[in-house]
Amino acid sequence: MIKVVAKCKLKPDANVEDYLNQARELVAETRKEKGCITYGLHQDINDPTIVTMLEEWVNEEALNLHNETDHVKRIVPGLRELRESTEINIYKEVE
Amino acid sequence: MIKVVAKCKLKPDANVEDYLNQARELVAETRKEKGCITYGLHQDINDPTIVTMLEEWVNEEALNLHNETDHVKRIVPGLRELRESTEINIYKEVE
Repeated sequence: MIKVVAKCKLKPDANVEDYLNQARELVAETRKEKGCITYGLHQDINDPTIVTMLEEWVNEEALNLHNETDHVKRIVPGLRELRESTEINIYKEVE
Repeated sequence: MIKVVAKCKLKPDANVEDYLNQARELVAETRKEKGCITYGLHQDINDPTIVTMLEEWVNEEALNLHNETDHVKRIVPGLRELRESTEINIYKEVE
């Protein structure tokens, strides 16, 4: 299993609710993917312009397939326009 | 429930295995805490000097109590010495 933390800082003038609504659609579609274990949208409790996806995938192949799906290609470009920065890390748990 | 992502970048000369061993003890002790749901040590698959704790707590009070425990006060200062930077975010899931 791999875990992804995709932390996004929105632009100061971005409409946060608009961003969240688009991201909700991405969540709904992504959760239908076979290799997706969890995929959840999160907001920093101290800064609502920090919006982070916390994800668990069965393996890297599942994540690569996700990045090629129609819903990612359709929804993510619009999200990117509202972001100032994006920081993505892929993790394995240390036993 | 709240979630914490504590992302640490180790110093270039830090002994990563030494850091992980100390962090493992913190994990073992923290998982015994009543308000802790999950607490897991993770390493970036592309950069072993990025070590991140992914945490779930019943509420903010449980997290505050954690920060006052003997094991945090005993183990965390040693971990901090091996870190170049630390980035902590506290999240709520967006429904």
